Amino acid sequence: MQTETALQPCDLLIEAGWVVPVVPHGVVLEDHAVAVRGGSIVAVLPRHEARARFDAADVVSRPQSALIPGLVNAHTHNPMTLLRGVADDLPLMQWLQGHIWPLEARLIGPEFVADGVALAIAEMLRGGTTCCNENYFFPDAEAATFRRFGFRALVGLPIIDFPSAWARSDDEYFDRACEVHDQWRNDPLVATAFAPHAPYTVSDASFERIRILSDQLDVPVHCHLHETAHEVAESQQKHGQRPLARLDRLGLVNDRLIAVHMTQLLESEIALCAARGVSVAHCPESNLKLASGFCPAGALQRAGVNLAIGTDGAASNNDLDMFGETRTAALLAKAVADDAAALDAASALHAATLGGARALGFGDLVGSVEPGKQADLACIDLAAIETQPLHHVISQLVYACGRQQVTDVWIAGRRRLRERALVDMDEAALLANARQWRERIAAIRVS
Amino acid sequence: MQTETALQPCDLLIEAGWVVPVVPHGVVLEDHAVAVRGGSIVAVLPRHEARARFDAADVVSRPQSALIPGLVNAHTHNPMTLLRGVADDLPLMQWLQGHIWPLEARLIGPEFVADGVALAIAEMLRGGTTCCNENYFFPDAEAATFRRFGFRALVGLPIIDFPSAWARSDDEYFDRACEVHDQWRNDPLVATAFAPHAPYTVSDASFERIRILSDQLDVPVHCHLHETAHEVAESQQKHGQRPLARLDRLGLVNDRLIAVHMTQLLESEIALCAARGVSVAHCPESNLKLASGFCPAGALQRAGVNLAIGTDGAASNNDLDMFGETRTAALLAKAVADDAAALDAASALHAATLGGARALGFGDLVGSVEPGKQADLACIDLAAIETQPLHHVISQLVYACGRQQVTDVWIAGRRRLRERALVDMDEAALLANARQWRERIAAIRVS
Repeated sequence: MQTETALQPCDLLIEAGWVVPVVPHGVVLEDHAVAVRGGSIVAVLPRHEARARFDAADVVSRPQSALIPGLVNAHTHNPMTLLRGVADDLPLMQWLQGHIWPLEARLIGPEFVADGVALAIAEMLRGGTTCCNENYFFPDAEAATFRRFGFRALVGLPIIDFPSAWARSDDEYFDRACEVHDQWRNDPLVATAFAPHAPYTVSDASFERIRILSDQLDVPVHCHLHETAHEVAESQQKHGQRPLARLDRLGLVNDRLIAVHMTQLLESEIALCAARGVSVAHCPESNLKLASGFCPAGALQRAGVNLAIGTDGAASNNDLDMFGETRTAALLAKAVADDAAALDAASALHAATLGGARALGFGDLVGSVEPGKQADLACIDLAAIETQPLHHVISQLVYACGRQQVTDVWIAGRRRLRERALVDMDEAALLANARQWRERIAAIRVS
Repeated sequence: MQTETALQPCDLLIEAGWVVPVVPHGVVLEDHAVAVRGGSIVAVLPRHEARARFDAADVVSRPQSALIPGLVNAHTHNPMTLLRGVADDLPLMQWLQGHIWPLEARLIGPEFVADGVALAIAEMLRGGTTCCNENYFFPDAEAATFRRFGFRALVGLPIIDFPSAWARSDDEYFDRACEVHDQWRNDPLVATAFAPHAPYTVSDASFERIRILSDQLDVPVHCHLHETAHEVAESQQKHGQRPLARLDRLGLVNDRLIAVHMTQLLESEIALCAARGVSVAHCPESNLKLASGFCPAGALQRAGVNLAIGTDGAASNNDLDMFGETRTAALLAKAVADDAAALDAASALHAATLGGARALGFGDLVGSVEPGKQADLACIDLAAIETQPLHHVISQLVYACGRQQVTDVWIAGRRRLRERALVDMDEAALLANARQWRERIAAIRVS
């Protein structure tokens, strides 16, 4: 006979000194617990109530830690992790034409892609990231690698006006894109998006095909946009329009669009993005390192644009550290807006979690700690010297915490990091593999 | 009988996969060792030669690590570590007048200062920093704390036109400054500098006294300068001159000046700083967080100004992480200069080490790994997932490495961090102390 006080079974109960659910905004729940069943969050409640209500198969107790939604990296090129630091401190075109593209021409293939993604997953998990928006060639190999290691991802289906090892013609790009989309359409962790490279590498005809297909298949469109002043000027010369206006003419400026970078924006363009429900994936460190410009993150957020944060690839960052990127976003927004109150800590954390989830079309699934959502969670130890004294939890998470303070990570309720050790990933094998790629890449570079 | 092959005694031999000596610029010495005797570096040589030449009392072998000069934090207010995150996301004056100053009025005294500096030293050591440029009240308590924990510091002797718990009048500020200077003048680790707070809080008369005394005593002058546009505008209104021009009129623009922040600079002012040997302590994260503006670090470096890097206090940063600060400096310089080649990785590392040492007047003593210099060294593990594959050592150190990868630190040859454990500092006691300050500060805030 079940009474009001009968214990409910659950798979996992995580008790934390502080739960930061992201929704409601800015709230910190002291001494709370999160109950997980079947991969989903079933309750968020005070710790003492949780033990009285749930009979958990597994209890994880972290009284000195904050539990937050797993971070969402809203723009990355994970295979390029193997090119981390291979060339730095160069102007964009010299970097691409003299280093990155010649290397990629020799390297790109399923093996490079799968190995790079695996290394990236390990780095992301160790830094509290549970989901990413991937953008590279061989999305089939990427998707399979995410699936293999139980990592959540939106995998971009590349469209670009140049032949590559992945596809030789426009038609082949589209055929392969639809094929990969079909293969993964019902996967619980991996979904796909169209990923037209950028306005300067994709024709009107291809953008129009993408619009039709993205409408029909209901998938996001992930595109580098307004990354540099040069891109905007070139578009005005070639198309008589700024890139955003051109995409609008082609019907792509809507709530499916994940616009990456956006360092060059007029007030009217910010208003257009807000009105149409466009998401902006802000990659501050890549923008700084490549001298691309400053995305007006504070103004976007104030205007109501859904703001997400991405690291970009490790070849231009040079890491996949969402704690660092979020901190940079919060700091930089203030100087760019000339307002020390711009993009406050809670808003920056929102961008790094729910903002990213919404951008990827995963807003109902992840991005906050709420009953009904998937249990994508990260636990952060705040007892270290570096985050003491602890006056404000969200401030410490955004402005003081380092990714090494992440101790535990779950994706859909499955443990992926346990007290800083990767679960079901062989760290030694990953490191050995990285070393052999170093040798292979060095051999190309010297040849 | 001594032959050419007789072993020379030394106290310590550190073998590293890579030694980055900073001098010569940009060089990485593979498989090298550093021999230390009496606190000084006596040799930097290939590993296999080192074992044949030295009989070391202690050998530390780190084949997967880089050995670099200890980082120099060129501007900080360490006692404010106890106020980390106490108030964020506020305009400067609201932050100071509404939060920081009222708290400080209740807190400042030898106990607050000593406890804050101790916590800061622990954080700095764990992040590879071996020396700092301190700027706060109660320099006597600060100096004693640095000495107690064997940390190298230039301690600022505060001069400000307002009474404080440290001094009630101009005369008392100067008397106490000279007293503290005298007390520490022959210390091997701790030296003193005049620290006039800022142009808007120090009179011409006080600046003139400082110039006379700093000449006479041969000590640096550490001053916030051109931090905000408001400061510059106010000076023009009140003095008819920009602050740098005013300090020049008062005879202070010379190679003793450590000018902190410098976000507002004309080309002629950059040239003046270069010509006079002024050092600039660039604090990019504080400038961003307080929306102060952008220091033209790339232009300063190109003009030949000695560039150093500082974290500023943890109340406005919110950490003392010189790895993070150096990375931010290198990234931000590029976007500010509109040049992806600005402040390259080797130059950023130079600013964080030898640039800082020179600014503090310690350029002959520390800041590079060279025979004759003090053995202030940090060892950084590059074998982690986050710094693989390892294509370029200096790139990884500046653009990918986190401070948690620091494993070992020495100051004047004495080990201060051993495999991430603090030496001669009680971490549990520091944490307990931080917690009691949290309670005391919370009690003030709610009252």
